[in-house]
Amino acid sequence: MPQQATKTAEIQARLTAVRAHMASAGVAAYIQPRADEYLGEYVPACNERLLWLSGYTGSAGFVVVLADSAGIFVDGRYTIQVRSQAPAECYSYHSMSDSLAEWLAERLPAGAKIGYDPRLHTLAWAQTTEKALKPARLTLAPLATNPVDASWADRPAAPATPLRLFPHSSAGATSTEKRKRVGGLITKAGADVALITACDSIAWLLNIRGDDIPYLPVVLGTALLYADGQMTFFVDPAKRIDSLAEHVGEGVRFEPETALEGALAKLGGQRLLADPAESNAWCQQQAQQAGAELIAGMDPVALPKAAKNAAELEGIRQAHLRDGAAVCRFLAWLDREVAAGRFYDEGQLADKLLWFRQQLPEFLDLSFDTISAAGGNAAMCHYNHMNGTPAMLPNNSIYLVDSGAQYPDGTTDITRTVAIGQVTDDMRRMVTLVLKGHIALDQARFPKGTSGHQLDVLARQYLWAAGFDFDHGTGHGVGHYLSVHEGPQRISKGPNAVALLPGMVCSNEPGYYRDHAFGIRLENLVAVRPCEALAGAEREIYEFEALTLVPMDTRLMDTSLMSRAEIDWVNRYHRRVFDAMAPQLEGEDLHWLTQATQPIGA
Amino acid sequence: MPQQATKTAEIQARLTAVRAHMASAGVAAYIQPRADEYLGEYVPACNERLLWLSGYTGSAGFVVVLADSAGIFVDGRYTIQVRSQAPAECYSYHSMSDSLAEWLAERLPAGAKIGYDPRLHTLAWAQTTEKALKPARLTLAPLATNPVDASWADRPAAPATPLRLFPHSSAGATSTEKRKRVGGLITKAGADVALITACDSIAWLLNIRGDDIPYLPVVLGTALLYADGQMTFFVDPAKRIDSLAEHVGEGVRFEPETALEGALAKLGGQRLLADPAESNAWCQQQAQQAGAELIAGMDPVALPKAAKNAAELEGIRQAHLRDGAAVCRFLAWLDREVAAGRFYDEGQLADKLLWFRQQLPEFLDLSFDTISAAGGNAAMCHYNHMNGTPAMLPNNSIYLVDSGAQYPDGTTDITRTVAIGQVTDDMRRMVTLVLKGHIALDQARFPKGTSGHQLDVLARQYLWAAGFDFDHGTGHGVGHYLSVHEGPQRISKGPNAVALLPGMVCSNEPGYYRDHAFGIRLENLVAVRPCEALAGAEREIYEFEALTLVPMDTRLMDTSLMSRAEIDWVNRYHRRVFDAMAPQLEGEDLHWLTQATQPIGA
Repeated sequence: MPQQATKTAEIQARLTAVRAHMASAGVAAYIQPRADEYLGEYVPACNERLLWLSGYTGSAGFVVVLADSAGIFVDGRYTIQVRSQAPAECYSYHSMSDSLAEWLAERLPAGAKIGYDPRLHTLAWAQTTEKALKPARLTLAPLATNPVDASWADRPAAPATPLRLFPHSSAGATSTEKRKRVGGLITKAGADVALITACDSIAWLLNIRGDDIPYLPVVLGTALLYADGQMTFFVDPAKRIDSLAEHVGEGVRFEPETALEGALAKLGGQRLLADPAESNAWCQQQAQQAGAELIAGMDPVALPKAAKNAAELEGIRQAHLRDGAAVCRFLAWLDREVAAGRFYDEGQLADKLLWFRQQLPEFLDLSFDTISAAGGNAAMCHYNHMNGTPAMLPNNSIYLVDSGAQYPDGTTDITRTVAIGQVTDDMRRMVTLVLKGHIALDQARFPKGTSGHQLDVLARQYLWAAGFDFDHGTGHGVGHYLSVHEGPQRISKGPNAVALLPGMVCSNEPGYYRDHAFGIRLENLVAVRPCEALAGAEREIYEFEALTLVPMDTRLMDTSLMSRAEIDWVNRYHRRVFDAMAPQLEGEDLHWLTQATQPIGA
Repeated sequence: MPQQATKTAEIQARLTAVRAHMASAGVAAYIQPRADEYLGEYVPACNERLLWLSGYTGSAGFVVVLADSAGIFVDGRYTIQVRSQAPAECYSYHSMSDSLAEWLAERLPAGAKIGYDPRLHTLAWAQTTEKALKPARLTLAPLATNPVDASWADRPAAPATPLRLFPHSSAGATSTEKRKRVGGLITKAGADVALITACDSIAWLLNIRGDDIPYLPVVLGTALLYADGQMTFFVDPAKRIDSLAEHVGEGVRFEPETALEGALAKLGGQRLLADPAESNAWCQQQAQQAGAELIAGMDPVALPKAAKNAAELEGIRQAHLRDGAAVCRFLAWLDREVAAGRFYDEGQLADKLLWFRQQLPEFLDLSFDTISAAGGNAAMCHYNHMNGTPAMLPNNSIYLVDSGAQYPDGTTDITRTVAIGQVTDDMRRMVTLVLKGHIALDQARFPKGTSGHQLDVLARQYLWAAGFDFDHGTGHGVGHYLSVHEGPQRISKGPNAVALLPGMVCSNEPGYYRDHAFGIRLENLVAVRPCEALAGAEREIYEFEALTLVPMDTRLMDTSLMSRAEIDWVNRYHRRVFDAMAPQLEGEDLHWLTQATQPIGA
């Protein structure tokens, strides 16, 4: 039996099992998203329910199982991939931008119940979906048992590696100090206790890290944090280590995850702060049923975690110095190989970059799947060479590499766009327009209270003026040896109510993507800091400090399109890069650095 | 008896009458805002309830009457003025940014009812206030009879001047065409009928204008517009004229305003589109009580009215050509007077500018109270010289004049900042920073779908970079011989979901205000238009067309702080101003224009 047929039969059998469960639960549909109850970007193997049920490996999507058909909904980047993974015999293919309510209304009679596992969705999703289904007289029905879990015989075990203690010196504060501080915010929000479901928030609060999921060094679990700083962490006891209690200090109780339901049931009469858009519906519904008053508000850890303290920032700077050297070595090697006429495929290049990072004693993990995109593949801004056959790097093209790493003192994320052989004037023009935007955002000064949506245009203005744009955000927050995509701040077109605060780390990553031709992205991480050099300022003004220190490819810059100030920026940045990297590089790599940081526009 | 004492006694008596009404209605408080049921920027004399009850003439504020005390709440610009108008014997003074709920909770026992007239507040206000009062166990109680109306013996008559027909040729569409088009939007919003309370929306829909209130040429009334384009306009019959029915075309019914209540009572089973944040609570509550389903959404007239058609834009351009000439004559006269050593007070200057406009046969009215601000008074961005003694224009200062007019083909709004005698380098620096922002916004190109909050930073970036900012929006919409402050678009720091569309008219008015020293604002109106000159554009790109054509004072510009492109912008703009204004000016005025538009930075 060929492999695809085996897989199709397997998935058919799984759907049959799920349908049997749906029938006994009295629901006409079951919605399976990718997320697990922690609602993070990554899920451990034991929670890859969407993959188990469909074969689909994309990072965004969901499945709707009906009695005699099923649909899979994915976002634009996965429309091709999903067809090779989820069997057409089992699934019809749809876009996540299609209306789920309309899709269901077309297929189900009025009165039908739509089953969902409230652990796997936010409360906001449940509320919005409920409202959207109402006109068709369909209702959402939370299921006590997840139909996939009930049918999944050989489900992998949950990760149970022991957690790791994160030094208070690196964190810049003890857990006790952090819990006191966040407890004050809970009181300020008018609540008695907060539901903390974001695993990076818990890791930050307790000064711990873990290895439960790829790229994100957290310990899976859920917590209740009280206004007085006391905390209960619901976590697999197998992950606890002897010195943990001492490390976290007074006032932290550890309970197995199975105790969460009982704890929520005891919240009657309490005011529970929870973020309906971030925390799973189940926890909030359980608490509400027990008589708790839900206070809708942002995770109180989000802002203190985002605005890094001096110790965190110092670690992040060190991580970037180190990571920059590895990236420089890779770029130097790549230039030498191209000059020698040796070309590699996207996978080999990603592996080589990983190898350079692995030579650093402090390297712990990548911070996400490396985007190693040759030629036209780079026009897909979330390209992953592992979803198909990695392409060979063509000569006379642009290579885009977006990667990052986890170090004990920080998380990195950098994109460089590299000339491979001869590039066209058009490519240089487009890189220069992106660069001008990058520089404008890097050089922005803005008053206290400014949000990311107010600055976004700075990075886009030169592209817009020439008739171009890019369809992703300009900047996301980055954690401190935590998530490479961290909220709550964001630099993008859409409104964001969170003001940029000193210590927040953000990416600055404008791009440009020409379909089937090439892709450009220039990404540095930057930290918000007070602008102290400003004589006579009437307002409290902030600016960015570039953390990433790797040359940008001057062979792709067209100085005739740049102002003197922009040329000076490039030369100043490269002087800084040289000073930081030269002591770490030698031989051919140092020679490459010297060349790569030569002043332009002289 | 001195005048102040008379006034205090009068207001005491009025409060006593209102309190008697409160007692019989069983409420512990009564809230009187400035607005009337049309919720516009201006109210006719018969609806100046806040003034009658307090003596206060500011444009923003409200009064809360309790059984034995009363508070008046005003915004920052009126904190001094209110103390000279609302007697301290009757009122305590508060800021509108104080929490009303807390203020009431401190003064009233749990269970108390807070009376309000639902005609004078938005539904959103009622809902928000209700929620805010809940923790203190206070409730909002809508009153059937307004306690001020019931006590106001010598209340002026409502305005009853006949309405005026607005030519279809100026409007670019007939009322029938407009009603059909907006009817389609009502269907699209999922509604059967829309509540239209904005008087400028009604005037636009019916191609009528009126003289009920100052500055805004509308007819007070309320309308219901059906999805098929049929409309009922509830308006004082005295305002109707013979040719009206023919002018508006088929499908428009006119009813007296007293018939509105009955019509709302007949909306049971209908889906009523209404904007909770713009329309009064009473209409929506009445419809809901009658069994209508409220669909919360933007006034469906707002977008079609904001995005001007070709005929409207052509009229607006003509209005600006004409208005520009009047402003040029005023600025030329002012320069001559200053040169001759003749100085005037702010009131005389505003009157002189009005006089120049009045010489235009097409002049109908100002579009708002002229802001004529000398020296340090200009640091108050909403300064009104009529609130106190108008100041003399000092020599060696900056004069700020923000004014506009209503013409049959358009509405204008322009601010110029003028050097009076010698100005300091510091003043020139600050004007230049404001100018650079004005130019950057004027020159912006942006893709379809861009909202004003995305462009706001362009106008502020140079001020921010130097440590400064201004505390008002950068741009507001402007109507077509309608409101000088028109939504729904806006260019400001705060998020605005409305994308800028071709034909939308906006102000571009960055400023800078140095307390007690000087104020700067450079305001042109601009229209959004497709950017057609862009070769190779991949996106649909828009740009602005400057409508206002009056020189900006080059004596206040420091070219050493300007880029070549900025200097070129000034020279290009002034060339355009010269070409447009020269044919309308003669003698000394033409000489002034020639001087004022001389190229800079040669």
